[in-house]
Amino acid sequence: MKIEQHLRISVGDGYDVYIGSGILENCGRFISELFPQRNCMIISESNVAPLYLEKVRTSCEDAGLTVSSFVFPAGEEQKTLETFGSILNALADAHLTRKDFVIALGGGVCGDMTGFAAGCYMRGIPFVQIPTTVLSMVDSSVGGKCAVDLPQGKNLAGVFHQPSLVLCDMDTLETLSPEVFADGCAEAIKTGILDGKELYELLQEGPEDGRLAQIIGRCIAYKGGVVERDEKEQSERKLLNLGHTAGHAIEKCSNFAISHGSAVAIGTAMMARAADALSFSTEPLSEDVESLLKDYRLPVTTDFEPEELLEAALTDKKRSGKLITIIMPEAIGHCVMREVTREQLLEIFTAGWR
Amino acid sequence: MKIEQHLRISVGDGYDVYIGSGILENCGRFISELFPQRNCMIISESNVAPLYLEKVRTSCEDAGLTVSSFVFPAGEEQKTLETFGSILNALADAHLTRKDFVIALGGGVCGDMTGFAAGCYMRGIPFVQIPTTVLSMVDSSVGGKCAVDLPQGKNLAGVFHQPSLVLCDMDTLETLSPEVFADGCAEAIKTGILDGKELYELLQEGPEDGRLAQIIGRCIAYKGGVVERDEKEQSERKLLNLGHTAGHAIEKCSNFAISHGSAVAIGTAMMARAADALSFSTEPLSEDVESLLKDYRLPVTTDFEPEELLEAALTDKKRSGKLITIIMPEAIGHCVMREVTREQLLEIFTAGWR
Repeated sequence: MKIEQHLRISVGDGYDVYIGSGILENCGRFISELFPQRNCMIISESNVAPLYLEKVRTSCEDAGLTVSSFVFPAGEEQKTLETFGSILNALADAHLTRKDFVIALGGGVCGDMTGFAAGCYMRGIPFVQIPTTVLSMVDSSVGGKCAVDLPQGKNLAGVFHQPSLVLCDMDTLETLSPEVFADGCAEAIKTGILDGKELYELLQEGPEDGRLAQIIGRCIAYKGGVVERDEKEQSERKLLNLGHTAGHAIEKCSNFAISHGSAVAIGTAMMARAADALSFSTEPLSEDVESLLKDYRLPVTTDFEPEELLEAALTDKKRSGKLITIIMPEAIGHCVMREVTREQLLEIFTAGWR
Repeated sequence: MKIEQHLRISVGDGYDVYIGSGILENCGRFISELFPQRNCMIISESNVAPLYLEKVRTSCEDAGLTVSSFVFPAGEEQKTLETFGSILNALADAHLTRKDFVIALGGGVCGDMTGFAAGCYMRGIPFVQIPTTVLSMVDSSVGGKCAVDLPQGKNLAGVFHQPSLVLCDMDTLETLSPEVFADGCAEAIKTGILDGKELYELLQEGPEDGRLAQIIGRCIAYKGGVVERDEKEQSERKLLNLGHTAGHAIEKCSNFAISHGSAVAIGTAMMARAADALSFSTEPLSEDVESLLKDYRLPVTTDFEPEELLEAALTDKKRSGKLITIIMPEAIGHCVMREVTREQLLEIFTAGWR
């Protein structure tokens, strides 16, 4: 085992994040230090479980934990109240008590749903995140936003429930398809634009030669800092939505055929182009951002028209006359929140479209 | 309108509790002061809605709020993840945003479920409690414990989500059946034993002549204090479970034919008898407690044998060898937590049985 990064996130009781390789085989050590002799349930999904579940189970059992498991079918479309209910039933069937805990082993869907279930089972029991994708490592495993989708929209039902420990094993990224890998990099690049030169330049150098662990660590450190200052997304945490207003609209227009990462990449490129075109940026951004996204094989344009995107962006916030909060990049390392009208949002989408 | 009591509960952001008569017709005033011009949804159940929903709606609309409503079928058996899901769907269909709020209009089932849904919708929006039974006024409307049942047990899925305002209109108690009225009084008597002479003597004088509002106010004040010191039930809040270990067992043995209030009354009487028989009490308790419970037409004995009750009490806490926390009354106004073994619990149940 090689631990490359160790971070501490000071939200709630605080929790450790370890990034490295060979962690899965040794996860029981970290976990049992927090929860010695306890009962736990590993929640995973049908793509990830065959690869890693037994490894995690064995390590936990060797460390003295009593382990059960529950595997749900893989896929974004499983992120529902129904799956949430079946996780809760599994926890109750296993007679887990308030002193026991849950392990989320998988990508963002698994972490989001498991966290939500852990946050509600007996009104909240602890959970450990073992993210197995770039996206879930840099984005969802830290910060405690847990949710499922409703038919009416994404992430509409959930809680804030911080994990007790986050274990990022870089070895799990080796089995990712290039598309899923790139997807996660979109959120990392978004974070680079927010955080500033150091992370941005790391991203420009590329994920090779062991830099990926550094990139992931830096992304988590940045996000952790934001969440420490604004856990419940009252203000600063909204910055993390850079590229997401257009991104969500693109996902929706494509009926979710375009992945979250690709949509965020396009959304981020749109905001960079809009910032240049409308003179919000204090240095030229768009050429640089586009080229970085392309380096990671991410798309930077969409065929959906600005008007379509506007409609899709506004469905969540039905009542007209209300302002929409968007995140505008002004320079690498400097983005600002802006409240814009419907008309201004259309202007931004149009300016950033191509 | 006549406000008889005004309390402030200092948990989270803190919230006001008003107790009086004619409040429903004027609720919009209180609510719109907190949430001016907002959208809200009234959640109620099929027994309560025909009586009070339009009154509440009209008052809220007159105060400038935009109001929608959702009514689910009445009954304990509706306290499920399914109903929770249908409330969430209703909130999403009405396009409620993070700035909007929910009103729970009804008894404990309605408040518990609505609070859980409000706690999860968009990861938490505010909610107002308008309890319409003695039980929900003295017990569930204050404190933020929200949950639904799972097939495996009661209240297994939920969150802690404090209300933003609690409005107790004494007029709503006039439509309660004697059984439902008595049910709530069981929790009030339990609270009297915990709180001490002042409330206990009020209860002995009886709920007539306007004393009911005082009793309810005193119960809420006591509970509020406990919750202020221990919101998440790490320690002191467990005291509120006086009579509930045996009570829950009785409910379970009866397959929930015996109501929660009746079961808590029997459980409380059992603990008082056990306290006397096993010399835990520093003054004779059982005769007094039994006679008070009987004054409120509540039962004090059960035909389920101590061994049966023990088995039912232990199903929640499967693993043997573990200690069970029980609340032992030592005097009126002085109860203590005790960790007991399975054998000791049987001894207590046996000593308190008749």
